[in-house]
Amino acid sequence: MSSATKSELQETRDCVEIELTQFMRDQSAYLLSISPELQPVSSALSSFLLDSGKRLRPLFAYAGIKSAGGSLTPATTKAISCLELLQACALIHDDLMDGSDTRRGKPSIHRHFESIHVQDELEGFAPAYGLASAVLLGDLALVWSNQLLNTSEMRVELMAGQFLDIHEQTQKNTDLDRSMKIARYKSGKYTIERPLHMGAVLAADASPALLAALSDYGLPLGEAFQFRDDLLGVFGDPSVTGKPAGDDLREGKRTALIAMTDAKCTDAMKAESRKYFGKNDIDDKGVAILQEMIVSTGAKAALETMIDELTSKALKAIENPAIDIAGRDLLNELALIATKRSM
Amino acid sequence: MSSATKSELQETRDCVEIELTQFMRDQSAYLLSISPELQPVSSALSSFLLDSGKRLRPLFAYAGIKSAGGSLTPATTKAISCLELLQACALIHDDLMDGSDTRRGKPSIHRHFESIHVQDELEGFAPAYGLASAVLLGDLALVWSNQLLNTSEMRVELMAGQFLDIHEQTQKNTDLDRSMKIARYKSGKYTIERPLHMGAVLAADASPALLAALSDYGLPLGEAFQFRDDLLGVFGDPSVTGKPAGDDLREGKRTALIAMTDAKCTDAMKAESRKYFGKNDIDDKGVAILQEMIVSTGAKAALETMIDELTSKALKAIENPAIDIAGRDLLNELALIATKRSM
Repeated sequence: MSSATKSELQETRDCVEIELTQFMRDQSAYLLSISPELQPVSSALSSFLLDSGKRLRPLFAYAGIKSAGGSLTPATTKAISCLELLQACALIHDDLMDGSDTRRGKPSIHRHFESIHVQDELEGFAPAYGLASAVLLGDLALVWSNQLLNTSEMRVELMAGQFLDIHEQTQKNTDLDRSMKIARYKSGKYTIERPLHMGAVLAADASPALLAALSDYGLPLGEAFQFRDDLLGVFGDPSVTGKPAGDDLREGKRTALIAMTDAKCTDAMKAESRKYFGKNDIDDKGVAILQEMIVSTGAKAALETMIDELTSKALKAIENPAIDIAGRDLLNELALIATKRSM
Repeated sequence: MSSATKSELQETRDCVEIELTQFMRDQSAYLLSISPELQPVSSALSSFLLDSGKRLRPLFAYAGIKSAGGSLTPATTKAISCLELLQACALIHDDLMDGSDTRRGKPSIHRHFESIHVQDELEGFAPAYGLASAVLLGDLALVWSNQLLNTSEMRVELMAGQFLDIHEQTQKNTDLDRSMKIARYKSGKYTIERPLHMGAVLAADASPALLAALSDYGLPLGEAFQFRDDLLGVFGDPSVTGKPAGDDLREGKRTALIAMTDAKCTDAMKAESRKYFGKNDIDDKGVAILQEMIVSTGAKAALETMIDELTSKALKAIENPAIDIAGRDLLNELALIATKRSM
C-alpha cells in the first residue's frame, strides 16, 4: 500500500482527533459550569474517547466520502467524528451488561466509578454507583453523538436515516441475542458498510450503483472483521487488545469460532470444555486448554481461511467503476487494517 | 376551566396516543422481522409507553405551539410525541439506577426482565439479564425518540438544539447529583419550559418575547411541579402514583421537602429519622413515623404554600401579550394539572 494512502488515513485520524478533543473540551467546560462535581464525568469520558481508539468507523466513513468523489470539510469532519461517540456509548453499555472489567487496557467505566466510590469513601453501595455512572455516561455519549452530527449542519434529513440505522445495529449487537448470526452480521454492517454509506451520502447524492458497490465491499469485509475479532478475543495479545488474554472464553461468548470448534469436538472434549468455558475464574491453564482445542479441531485455521476469502471478495469489489478512483487505495488499506492479525 | 379547553387537551392526548401506537406497531414489526426472540422487547416497550402516562410533556409542547399561534399538524404531532419516548428512556434508566421495583403500578423494566428470566428458566444470572435489558430498552427508546423527531420532517436544524437541551436535562437529573438544587430546577425545566419552547419553535420562528414569556410561566411552574412530586413521593396514594406508599422515604431521596424537615428537626427527631429514612425494608409504621415528622415540623404545609405561590406566579405570566390568545386557556389548565394534589 502506498505511503501516501497511509498518511492520508493518518491525517484523517488527526482531524477526527482534533474535532473530538475540541468537542470534549467544550462539553467538559459546560459540565463543569453546571457543577464542579461533574469533573469525574467529563474526565472519564474525555479519557475514554481520546486516550485510544483506532477511529475505524470514521475512517470507513471517510473512505465513503472519497468513493463518492467528495473530500473532507469542517462539516464532514464533525459528521464522521460523531461515530466515535456513538461507539463509546455502545462500548460503555456493553461492558456494563457483560460485567467486563477492562476496556482498552484500562478499567471499564462502571469499574472506574466503582473504584472512585471506594477510594473517596462515598456513601452508598459502590457497584450501584458504578452502574448508574455507566448508564449515564453511555447515554451522554449517545446524546453528544447526535449533537455533533447536528452541529455538522450537513444534510441532516438525508443523514438521519443512515445514522439511525447505524445506531440500531448497536442495539441488536447485544447479549439478548448475542449468539445470533444476524447480530454478528449486523455488527459488521455497523462497523463498515454503514459508515461507508454515510460518507457517500455526506459527500454527494450517492448513486444506487455506488451504494451497492460499497455494500459489495463492506458486507464481506464486515464479516471478516467480526471473525478476526473472534480470533483476537481468544488468541489476542492483551497489550494489543486491551483485554485480558482469552477474555471471550472467560465471558463464554458464543462466537462463530466456538460454534466451529463445537462441531468438531468429541463428547469427551465437550465435557472438558464445560469445565472452563464461560467461567469467570478460569486461569491461564484453562485458557490454554480451550485455545488448544480450538486449534486442534482445525477451527482456527478454517476461520483464517474464511477471513482470507471474504477479504479477497471485498478487495475485488473495489474495482467496480462506480467507486471514485480517489477512494480505492483507501478501501484497500482499510480492508487490511480491519482484518490484520495483530490489530 | 372551560370544558372546551379540557376536550382540546384530550384530543391532543388522543393524537399523541395514536401516533405512539402506530409508531410502536411499526417498530415492533421491524423488531420481529429481525427475530421473533425480540418479542419480549417490543411488548415490554409498547406496554411501558402505551398503557399509561399523562403525556404531560407533549401537552406542554402543544401549549407552546398554540402560544405561538400555530396548530397541530401530522408533523408537529410526531415531533411532540417524541418527548414521550425520551421520557421512557429517562424513566427506564432511572429505575435501573435507583433499583426501583415498580413504575406506573407495574414492575419496572429491569424487574420485568428479571422475572422473565426466572419464569422461563433461562441460562445465566437473572439480575444481569434484567440490567442488560433495561440498558438496551432505554437506549432503544432514546434512538426511537430521535427517529420520530426526524421523521416529523420539521425544522430539524432549529429543533435539534432544543431537543438536545431537553435531553441533557434528563442526564443531569440523576443520582450523581440528585440532591443538587440545580438538578431539581433543570428537571422542572425539562418537563415544562423546554417542551413549551419546543412547541413555539415548531409552530413559528418564535420571537424572543414569546420565549421569555413562556419561561416566566414555565420556570416557576417547573419548580412547583417538582415540589408536588416531592409531596407525592412521600404522601401520594399508591393507586394514583403507581409507586408504593412513601417510596421516596424508602429510597432516601433528599428532596427539598426532606431538607425543610431536617432544618426544623430536633436532634432526637434526627436520630429517630435515621432509623427509617433510606432503609429498603422500612415498613408501614416507619413510613408513618417519617410522614408525621414532615407534617409536625410544618415542612409539608410550607411546601404547599410555596407551590401555591409559584403556581400563582406562573398563572400571572400567562397574561403577557406575547402569548397568543389561543394558548392561554391551555396554559391555565396545564398549570393546574401539573401541580394538583391528586396527580
